Amino acid sequence: MSDAISNVLAERYATASMCGIWSPEGKVRLEREYWVAVLKAQRDLGQSVPDGVIEAYEAVIDQVDVAAIMRRERVTRHDVKARIEEFCELAGHEHIHKGMTSRDLTENVEQLQVFRGLLEVRKKMVAVLGGMARRASETRDMPLTARTHNVAAQVTTVGKRWAMFGEETMLGFEALESVIASYPARGLKGAVGTRMDQISLFGGDAAMAKDLEQRILHHLGLPRSLDAVGQVYPRSLDMQVVAALCGAASGPSSFARTLRLMAGQELASEGFAKGQVGSSAMPHKMNSRSCERVNGLHVILKGYLAMAAGLAGDQWNEGDVSCSVVRRVMLPDAFLAIDGLLETFLTILDQMEVFGAVVEQELMRYLPFLLTTTVLMEAVKNGAGREAAHEAIKLHAVAVAKDLRTGAVSQNDLLARLAADPAMGLSAEALDAIVAQGRINAGDAPAQVDDFARRVKLVADRFPEAAAYQPGAIL
Amino acid sequence: MSDAISNVLAERYATASMCGIWSPEGKVRLEREYWVAVLKAQRDLGQSVPDGVIEAYEAVIDQVDVAAIMRRERVTRHDVKARIEEFCELAGHEHIHKGMTSRDLTENVEQLQVFRGLLEVRKKMVAVLGGMARRASETRDMPLTARTHNVAAQVTTVGKRWAMFGEETMLGFEALESVIASYPARGLKGAVGTRMDQISLFGGDAAMAKDLEQRILHHLGLPRSLDAVGQVYPRSLDMQVVAALCGAASGPSSFARTLRLMAGQELASEGFAKGQVGSSAMPHKMNSRSCERVNGLHVILKGYLAMAAGLAGDQWNEGDVSCSVVRRVMLPDAFLAIDGLLETFLTILDQMEVFGAVVEQELMRYLPFLLTTTVLMEAVKNGAGREAAHEAIKLHAVAVAKDLRTGAVSQNDLLARLAADPAMGLSAEALDAIVAQGRINAGDAPAQVDDFARRVKLVADRFPEAAAYQPGAIL
Amino acid sequence: MSDAISNVLAERYATASMCGIWSPEGKVRLEREYWVAVLKAQRDLGQSVPDGVIEAYEAVIDQVDVAAIMRRERVTRHDVKARIEEFCELAGHEHIHKGMTSRDLTENVEQLQVFRGLLEVRKKMVAVLGGMARRASETRDMPLTARTHNVAAQVTTVGKRWAMFGEETMLGFEALESVIASYPARGLKGAVGTRMDQISLFGGDAAMAKDLEQRILHHLGLPRSLDAVGQVYPRSLDMQVVAALCGAASGPSSFARTLRLMAGQELASEGFAKGQVGSSAMPHKMNSRSCERVNGLHVILKGYLAMAAGLAGDQWNEGDVSCSVVRRVMLPDAFLAIDGLLETFLTILDQMEVFGAVVEQELMRYLPFLLTTTVLMEAVKNGAGREAAHEAIKLHAVAVAKDLRTGAVSQNDLLARLAADPAMGLSAEALDAIVAQGRINAGDAPAQVDDFARRVKLVADRFPEAAAYQPGAIL
Amino acid sequence: MSDAISNVLAERYATASMCGIWSPEGKVRLEREYWVAVLKAQRDLGQSVPDGVIEAYEAVIDQVDVAAIMRRERVTRHDVKARIEEFCELAGHEHIHKGMTSRDLTENVEQLQVFRGLLEVRKKMVAVLGGMARRASETRDMPLTARTHNVAAQVTTVGKRWAMFGEETMLGFEALESVIASYPARGLKGAVGTRMDQISLFGGDAAMAKDLEQRILHHLGLPRSLDAVGQVYPRSLDMQVVAALCGAASGPSSFARTLRLMAGQELASEGFAKGQVGSSAMPHKMNSRSCERVNGLHVILKGYLAMAAGLAGDQWNEGDVSCSVVRRVMLPDAFLAIDGLLETFLTILDQMEVFGAVVEQELMRYLPFLLTTTVLMEAVKNGAGREAAHEAIKLHAVAVAKDLRTGAVSQNDLLARLAADPAMGLSAEALDAIVAQGRINAGDAPAQVDDFARRVKLVADRFPEAAAYQPGAIL
Repeated sequence: MSDAISNVLAERYATASMCGIWSPEGKVRLEREYWVAVLKAQRDLGQSVPDGVIEAYEAVIDQVDVAAIMRRERVTRHDVKARIEEFCELAGHEHIHKGMTSRDLTENVEQLQVFRGLLEVRKKMVAVLGGMARRASETRDMPLTARTHNVAAQVTTVGKRWAMFGEETMLGFEALESVIASYPARGLKGAVGTRMDQISLFGGDAAMAKDLEQRILHHLGLPRSLDAVGQVYPRSLDMQVVAALCGAASGPSSFARTLRLMAGQELASEGFAKGQVGSSAMPHKMNSRSCERVNGLHVILKGYLAMAAGLAGDQWNEGDVSCSVVRRVMLPDAFLAIDGLLETFLTILDQMEVFGAVVEQELMRYLPFLLTTTVLMEAVKNGAGREAAHEAIKLHAVAVAKDLRTGAVSQNDLLARLAADPAMGLSAEALDAIVAQGRINAGDAPAQVDDFARRVKLVADRFPEAAAYQPGAIL
Repeated sequence: MSDAISNVLAERYATASMCGIWSPEGKVRLEREYWVAVLKAQRDLGQSVPDGVIEAYEAVIDQVDVAAIMRRERVTRHDVKARIEEFCELAGHEHIHKGMTSRDLTENVEQLQVFRGLLEVRKKMVAVLGGMARRASETRDMPLTARTHNVAAQVTTVGKRWAMFGEETMLGFEALESVIASYPARGLKGAVGTRMDQISLFGGDAAMAKDLEQRILHHLGLPRSLDAVGQVYPRSLDMQVVAALCGAASGPSSFARTLRLMAGQELASEGFAKGQVGSSAMPHKMNSRSCERVNGLHVILKGYLAMAAGLAGDQWNEGDVSCSVVRRVMLPDAFLAIDGLLETFLTILDQMEVFGAVVEQELMRYLPFLLTTTVLMEAVKNGAGREAAHEAIKLHAVAVAKDLRTGAVSQNDLLARLAADPAMGLSAEALDAIVAQGRINAGDAPAQVDDFARRVKLVADRFPEAAAYQPGAIL
Repeated sequence: MSDAISNVLAERYATASMCGIWSPEGKVRLEREYWVAVLKAQRDLGQSVPDGVIEAYEAVIDQVDVAAIMRRERVTRHDVKARIEEFCELAGHEHIHKGMTSRDLTENVEQLQVFRGLLEVRKKMVAVLGGMARRASETRDMPLTARTHNVAAQVTTVGKRWAMFGEETMLGFEALESVIASYPARGLKGAVGTRMDQISLFGGDAAMAKDLEQRILHHLGLPRSLDAVGQVYPRSLDMQVVAALCGAASGPSSFARTLRLMAGQELASEGFAKGQVGSSAMPHKMNSRSCERVNGLHVILKGYLAMAAGLAGDQWNEGDVSCSVVRRVMLPDAFLAIDGLLETFLTILDQMEVFGAVVEQELMRYLPFLLTTTVLMEAVKNGAGREAAHEAIKLHAVAVAKDLRTGAVSQNDLLARLAADPAMGLSAEALDAIVAQGRINAGDAPAQVDDFARRVKLVADRFPEAAAYQPGAIL
Repeated sequence: MSDAISNVLAERYATASMCGIWSPEGKVRLEREYWVAVLKAQRDLGQSVPDGVIEAYEAVIDQVDVAAIMRRERVTRHDVKARIEEFCELAGHEHIHKGMTSRDLTENVEQLQVFRGLLEVRKKMVAVLGGMARRASETRDMPLTARTHNVAAQVTTVGKRWAMFGEETMLGFEALESVIASYPARGLKGAVGTRMDQISLFGGDAAMAKDLEQRILHHLGLPRSLDAVGQVYPRSLDMQVVAALCGAASGPSSFARTLRLMAGQELASEGFAKGQVGSSAMPHKMNSRSCERVNGLHVILKGYLAMAAGLAGDQWNEGDVSCSVVRRVMLPDAFLAIDGLLETFLTILDQMEVFGAVVEQELMRYLPFLLTTTVLMEAVKNGAGREAAHEAIKLHAVAVAKDLRTGAVSQNDLLARLAADPAMGLSAEALDAIVAQGRINAGDAPAQVDDFARRVKLVADRFPEAAAYQPGAIL
């Protein structure tokens, strides 16, 4: 067809390494790795495999010609058969796929795609955590107006805000690790999961058939296999995986959303790529396009979670294929989406800027409000009546807030009003001292940043290569 | 990249006509149609457009070279500009896109894709309704054991069962028609929806700017436009559209699910394509692959509905682009999914078979149970005591059910037992007569089939071309 | 049980009128209305109903004693039977529920709840539209910095922003009206939809049975009925309804989200209830609690949409009751949620405030940026070189933006810089004139407000009582 | 209000122990436990708490009078304050809630509800696994026609089918355990997460403030706490929890769905409660009401998952309360739903029946088809030509399938036809032997059952009390 449509997530957002797992070529490669793993395990268990055969197959794993396979399929009218023939002809042997049914191939290869995809996501997550820790540490002590209900609430630090989203990211990372560590393959179990075909291959020896499966897993690096399955592995496992991807995206998504809010206040910006400028019509405009993309890709992931949930708990008997078309769409696309999301987020972490002067202006506007409790305490300590002082503070605070909103004043002059009120009994100097001290009293915020950075370091030490990952250019 | 990934819904399930709307080429064509419509409207309103210009543009609308456009984009680094240049160079003029901002182009062209997509879905729905009416009419009088809780409940007819799912499909069709009839375009409203840019074009004449928009809509066949919009049209409109697609799929999906159940009982089958046979290993096996696909595609649609819902009610100010990536994925893919679903379902309607003998065997197994109320009535009319007869029926019915489950009997012999029970006072002949009559008493079922067919005819008369639509070969 | 748990949506958010539809008492009342409607229709069609019977039933419709019914149920072990007995004993007659199966009662009564719920939602939507039009008209001319990507983009007006969300609300209202106008009842169709039981009642006269159904609908005010149904009506109809509720919530939700953003900039506030003040600890803090609630209730509605979608297209044969528990939860709770959402939103519309001075400050900060295109045009008109002027503008704009972010300047002095740049050739007075004029040039914005108000008026004229609706106190 | 609406999930489906966690009374109890835990920790860290105070509070934890608290709230207009006062007055002291903000209370207490809820779910899951293992072991060797695409595919055993769904349940159980083991509390961190308020309490000693939190967790049995949080804990944690609940439901849901399919074939039934009978009108009808309910409750859970996903990654700054209403609905209701689902499923496991005679009849109908591969192998071994034998088998198999569907034969006579075909060269006896042997060749199925039972035993040994759990009566 002239009007081919490419996968938009692959084309615009995902990286080559993730696309390599889910592309037709990539799947053929994984399939061949899998066949070779089966062959090795069969040989190890005494099945006859002549010398050089495995090497011959291994040598051609990467010679993938999807068009040639398609031509074979048009003749055989059977996709698995076409791929067997192609691989065998390239290798010059006919030894693969013995004792296997179609599902013994397809289920496990798809799980291998999922597993490799998870490792790829883990790699990016390690890099993301590293970037978040770096950003948090840079600004661990920069006082910031913390907001609840999107309104000024108390003092925190910029770095603490980043660490807070880092903490959420760490939660997602841990959940991902848990899925990886326990991910079970369906294994070689025949058409309906009884392992009948494999046991026949070993002349009725069930232990050998089981051993075969374990060896294959070992070759492929998969942690374990399921035992009592049907034609298929339980589709709720796919839901676990997609839920973990959604979880992995949550910290970055909260971060991106807050950065969009901060950009609206000019407190920060996701920045520009080197050499990039705003539009010529509106050079002032620094749009949070990448942050918006992170949030958008998260919405997409939640849609794939709905698809995965739609399959969970819906198995008929030993399984049917109403899940097939769903998994063809949902599995690759969920992985491509999280990949694009993390890649975009890594770029944000690289390019983002905090505008310290604006952060400081904001703090000055709100700090007097945020410190009214301390002011009250000091006034009482200094001899003022609690009730009178409380009433005075409330009166002045409400008045200042109102005057700021009506434009009657342009700066927060609450301190001046309090200093002038005899009910408070506090000098301007005393009030200035309270503010100077309150300005930097963000409690444990800096320590929390350090603790976050320390935990990220432990992760990075486990995955040094991942920690050094640099994102490519994004669209 | 060598590892390109194509859109699996387009590649495997959707038809060329739907792909033509959503492909890059298709979008360029629609965009050019749109530019020409704007140009015509501008000319009609007195803007100077030299003779021959519109014709020159129209002549090259279909000369779409996506690669060439991409080459331009690499130079201009601006996608809209690249497409303007390409179109202008092909036409040999520079008259398009005047008084327009990017969103004046992209929002409306995407809506044109949606609208054309909706018309395409309507076409297929008309054909689907026709097929359902045909199947229902064929079997309007064939008695069938109706099931509730998946268990025999009362007599209906096969045709009535199809008409029942047809009724659900009709509901979906009506909802779709309602969306089409009221679908509003964003229109030409400038960067934030105030129409400032267009009003400037007409030297401050707001009425002219408004008239321009109406004329464009008229050229494109869109029913109406929104008035007070922002940068974008409200994304809840996309949710309305995707909800309508889900609704359109519901009748077919219920039908397909029930056909899968019936295949499990060998009452019916989705059939084979001409020349197709079962697998050589299991020639008896007629798998409901297409029905499963219909159900799977419905799960996919619900996932896109979740994405659409994720955007609804989430507008920040005049709009931002966190929706962008979601709509790039969700809109095409939802339309490709419903297209593949309806195409698959049309094939099922063409090829499906009902196995009358098995339907009859099932009915004979359950009919005596289904008629116990009638038997009781007749027994009483004939002089039996109500309580005694009721007790006798219950006793025998439970015993027969139990004997069938334990294998003590292989056929339902409830009638024989009742005939032999003096408490009933009914002869074997009398009981046979009740059964003979009850067997075909499906109430209004045949009339409901006729009424459904009549309503479908009204629809087909409105869309004769759609009613004649024949599905292509499916995978 | 001592630890009873009440429905939190009913208890905290929904109004008495909506709760009255979905409470056990309310359902009993609707059920009795329905039985009486059936009885009237049966009488009209010649079934014998002695004088005074209908009046006797009607007289006790509101004497609902749920505990008494529950006591009967414990004896009969059948909920419908218990409710029949109670109603009959109160009325002193035994004439209801003739020729009806359980589903003839329950399906239609639940649909009556849905339908009355929809009318209630429509009422609130009319009031919401009225409030939005009022707010929009109040501020139709107040210039506001329109934002895209949450960043200043062009001039609009406050009223236009409200009208924009009003437009989205109008879309939701229209979709709701479409659902109401076409809402089809299942009707009296017997156990599996063949109408066999009703036809028997009329001695085989199918036309009478059909007429009966139409008369019942007429009594109840329902627009129409389905024809070919099974035990149940298609559950995709519930999805249509819940999708319409989600759509109805989208405009308010977008409005609320933007108001939360504006509150963060102190441009506006959802306000306080009369007599309410901020917390004593933080008197400056005006939290957008109600707006947050609107957004939260929208998330809830989308969850119920997922439940409704989970049922659509999943019918097995003539129906089973895997939908039962879902509908018990989803239907009432979706209506209670939208009711609470609209009630909350009406309160916001009543109490919200716009802080004009802050709106003006914001505009002044950004206006010079927003008018650079106009400035360029004027400069060129005045004799400046296009390229040189363009370059100068870009240079100064970027510098100002940077100086604002670093705190080097505290006010936008772009105009002064441009006035001082000979490349522009524009005097400070000329530039001031451009700004004075640009400040109020929001294109069609005020006219769009008027048009929105006009359309709302048309709606209000159709539903005058609804338009006058005033929300009660909210939590 | 007279028209109170109770929570339908609590009222109809959930158990008293789960309702006790989520009821208003239950929450007050947990809150008091929490306050006492804080008090103990404060005392341990040297804060002055007079002797007898803690004991006085502990003594009145269970004296919960919700109405009294409500009366206080009407006076104080502050819910937390009202509950503090009530608890203090009951205890006769005023020592609780020191150094705490509202969120230090509410976040942690809600997490305590979640955590206790998870433990309750784990308890039921252990019992469920036990029931599944018992059922699987009972029928480990009973041959069953395995189905793929809902059509006969190969031989398995009934027990293996149950173990297969048990395996899925085990996956859900493991994921649940992983969430429980790592569940992190927000901890005492003050209004925006900086722990400023707690550090002040300890005169600036951050280590003490941190120690306080650890001790509280220890008292409550929570495994760990988050470090860098905002006002709230990340809402993606709620999504993890609800995803785990959905996962826990998936195995039971697949089981229930398959049991509904089997009931339609009369292979099995969910059974009746002791003393229960079918309806008097249709005594044969054993409806899968409980299985349908399990599937329905799963749909509900997926809706709550959509709500939880709607909150994940949507944090604004340090947090706001747009999540509040969602969590009020979603968290209790998700736990009540899974509780009702598991309780219902336990009842199914108790009461279900397999109808061995019908299972055998089904097997006899399909077995000849299922063994065609073996027959071919034996024919070839016996001297037949492979191609001829293959062709003969295919011919006869297709013919028999057709004859069964047309009613030309009522029993599968494939073996007789093959015995009569000289191309096969197999005697009737030889064929009978193949069938006799194939009938019981379910490969590893019995061993898989044993292995499943063994793993369940390991779980039961860890939670003996849970393993002994017996469900109560269900509706």
